[in-house]
Amino acid sequence: MLRHNVLTIVGVGLIGGSIGLAAKQRGLVRTVRGLGRQQSSLQRALTAGAIDEGRLDPAAALAGADLVIFCTPVDQIAGQIVRFAELCKPGALLTDAGSTKGKIVADVEASLPEQVHFVGSHPLAGSEKRGPDFADAELFEGRWTVLTPTPRTNAEALAKVKAFWMALGSRVRTMTPADHDRARALTSHVPHLVAAALAGSLTPELYDLAASGFRDTTRIAAGDPGLWTAIFAHNRDAVLVALTEVEAKLQEFRQAVTAQDWAALQQLLSQAKKVRDALGS
Amino acid sequence: MLRHNVLTIVGVGLIGGSIGLAAKQRGLVRTVRGLGRQQSSLQRALTAGAIDEGRLDPAAALAGADLVIFCTPVDQIAGQIVRFAELCKPGALLTDAGSTKGKIVADVEASLPEQVHFVGSHPLAGSEKRGPDFADAELFEGRWTVLTPTPRTNAEALAKVKAFWMALGSRVRTMTPADHDRARALTSHVPHLVAAALAGSLTPELYDLAASGFRDTTRIAAGDPGLWTAIFAHNRDAVLVALTEVEAKLQEFRQAVTAQDWAALQQLLSQAKKVRDALGS
Repeated sequence: MLRHNVLTIVGVGLIGGSIGLAAKQRGLVRTVRGLGRQQSSLQRALTAGAIDEGRLDPAAALAGADLVIFCTPVDQIAGQIVRFAELCKPGALLTDAGSTKGKIVADVEASLPEQVHFVGSHPLAGSEKRGPDFADAELFEGRWTVLTPTPRTNAEALAKVKAFWMALGSRVRTMTPADHDRARALTSHVPHLVAAALAGSLTPELYDLAASGFRDTTRIAAGDPGLWTAIFAHNRDAVLVALTEVEAKLQEFRQAVTAQDWAALQQLLSQAKKVRDALGS
Repeated sequence: MLRHNVLTIVGVGLIGGSIGLAAKQRGLVRTVRGLGRQQSSLQRALTAGAIDEGRLDPAAALAGADLVIFCTPVDQIAGQIVRFAELCKPGALLTDAGSTKGKIVADVEASLPEQVHFVGSHPLAGSEKRGPDFADAELFEGRWTVLTPTPRTNAEALAKVKAFWMALGSRVRTMTPADHDRARALTSHVPHLVAAALAGSLTPELYDLAASGFRDTTRIAAGDPGLWTAIFAHNRDAVLVALTEVEAKLQEFRQAVTAQDWAALQQLLSQAKKVRDALGS
């Protein structure tokens, strides 16, 4: 079902490329335009079938676009939205795919021109891979996308953005930006720190001894350090709170091992297993 | 190449079943016998093709066996080896697949009759799955198996056990039992605690927000709590030392986030990524 005439994707990497590919394959838009900083990456997105047109010039990329999705690093999104809004037609719908929401939404709402609408989004999909070559039309299928409207969010814009993510196959949940950031601190940002601390503790003579369990546990530590540093900078306060929570839980495990209280340890492991089993593979 | 006439596997779960399946498919032994405590699980191992004969009686299972591999939980292995050695023929070769080595090897060497030989083994293969239904003839292919000989280990026995694991497709490395346990504390046991602490910190309303990164990081927390409690009990001292190391590394990350020293954080994340990239997928 055609929902938008022109979709512009700002930043055509894994997420942006997957949005383009999925929107094209599902017939949701007439034209997908990619805005990038390098001709070579736009060419890769074209080759992958993720976009119909590649543009290096923001004005050319945004002219006449109905829907604009910002898939750039979190420390760039708000500035780009505010700057590029001037180039959008009145009534254009702007959203993003940033992993943090509080700072982005606040910065955008502080400066957005009235004639366009913004709704914060975060599709919980992705991988440690990067680039449009890994674009996957099914990336959002069955995954959650969190939308973070505020009292200032236009209701019709929210409904349209929600319908778009659902048309990509996603399930949609609405939270405040602060609740999103607190939840993701515990479910993503602190796990990333912990995975990195484990990986960072490993010396080369132990690499052979790190089997599949270690590789699973540390997989996310292969993520891009620059992108993740920006995420931690955005969500610092919630990350520190969640880190304290996880450290307190880890101390319960340590205490049981130290005291040789094996019944208590087995109880802690059983509770963790129950949670993990509930999450599925 | 036929290496042994009768192989007896004590405890035919995922690991024991995979050893049987691989040994049969590779033509390494004439007969694989499974010793178990329940007819139903022996039947499942027979159905999976992991064993040729199932036995509930140790004497019947061990009579005439050339090679006996103990694949039971770590807190049972040493006692079984010492007890069952009496039932083995002179010159029989005994090994195990336990995830800890120091306590098992010490307990076995303290009491083993002279007429049989023991070599400690640990194949770094497996999964959070259990039971012979998941037996996989390729489970050891390309994976490391650590052998932990001591000055009391018979050289010929060591060579034969090494040749057997290599014939299953494994790469073999030799370490002291203590070095093995220290290495696995950091590469497996502490990651398990950390994964369990992360999983155990998650409340049900956050389950939807835990995407693939969280599921990877906590996957091993689905392991059997009883088996893992026994592992922690065996390797308590090395686990506490490794936990202190990982916590110290995590404090470096916390310190960088607290101080908003984003250059330091990116440096820490880059170092971790370098390690993780070196491990492969």
